Amino acid sequence: MQRMKEMILQEGTVLPGGILKVGSFLNQQVNSEFMKEIGDEIATLFADDQVTKILTIESSGIALAAAAGISMHIPFVFAKKHRTSNVDGSTYTTTVHSFTHGTDYQVVVSRDYLMPTDRVLLVDDFLANGNALRGLVDLVNQSGAELVGAAVAIEKKFQGGGDELRAGGLRIESLAMIESMTDTEITFCD
Amino acid sequence: MQRMKEMILQEGTVLPGGILKVGSFLNQQVNSEFMKEIGDEIATLFADDQVTKILTIESSGIALAAAAGISMHIPFVFAKKHRTSNVDGSTYTTTVHSFTHGTDYQVVVSRDYLMPTDRVLLVDDFLANGNALRGLVDLVNQSGAELVGAAVAIEKKFQGGGDELRAGGLRIESLAMIESMTDTEITFCD
Repeated sequence: MQRMKEMILQEGTVLPGGILKVGSFLNQQVNSEFMKEIGDEIATLFADDQVTKILTIESSGIALAAAAGISMHIPFVFAKKHRTSNVDGSTYTTTVHSFTHGTDYQVVVSRDYLMPTDRVLLVDDFLANGNALRGLVDLVNQSGAELVGAAVAIEKKFQGGGDELRAGGLRIESLAMIESMTDTEITFCD
Repeated sequence: MQRMKEMILQEGTVLPGGILKVGSFLNQQVNSEFMKEIGDEIATLFADDQVTKILTIESSGIALAAAAGISMHIPFVFAKKHRTSNVDGSTYTTTVHSFTHGTDYQVVVSRDYLMPTDRVLLVDDFLANGNALRGLVDLVNQSGAELVGAAVAIEKKFQGGGDELRAGGLRIESLAMIESMTDTEITFCD
């Protein structure tokens, strides 16, 4: 998606530790017009896949999921992060390791909102090492729903998570794929 | 908003402790078509107010803010919750007391995303005792932006927060206003 690359180049900044800050338009302040375009793009990419539900993870995936949900005319669900396990049988739960924070956290979603009859599309803002996406894959597998694929706004390809997940058979559509990143230059894959 | 009342009556359930569960359509699974209607309704209510930015709080306000942002063609910003204060001068920060959890938490937003020239509309899913909304009001006041008002999906009027904030001069538009609630009956204000 050409405009995603342009937005990253215009407004993104690289912070120490290889963090790409896109808070001005994607994940703290959100450019609504652009979000609508992203939703339309995701709808086009998965137009033939009979998606019935979008699954994302709080908080920064929610705006993307909302926009895609509006464009695709289907509901979305967001999994919640918890510091401690809180299993009472009413949820699907998985553990995600955060490289950024060096900690594990639980990700939960109510069993009521992922059904075996669902065809699920995962949506998130970033794909780096792939741990968050792996957690969502696990939740879908637990539910018995069909996993259609994943759409992410920005993939940091050099961190390898996307390639590993693709090798495992997951279809991933990244709206911008970053090959390398320095303090002064961001290079996209073709 | 008639349809909000209908959705609450059709899909909402009252849990012990006076909690209204609307996770099937509003704040865990999100009905995208309905969210689009909510966005359009909020856009109509504040059509004459030259709103430049929507401010909400993670996580359950984000879908509403995204929908309203799309309908109003303006960006939205979500304030983040932190357990500990993390003030390095780059954020506006306030403390919110959670009655539900009996704890205080910090709410922060980057100074980059609330400007004195902004005209800000607050959006959230619930208004009960009003503490979260008071926190957002405080953030707007710190920024020097103009506070236009607040739009909430569901106000639990019997908890008093909305009336207190209105008495302080805040314009609040609630899409459904609940007068009383028992295990078996939800009564709306006229």
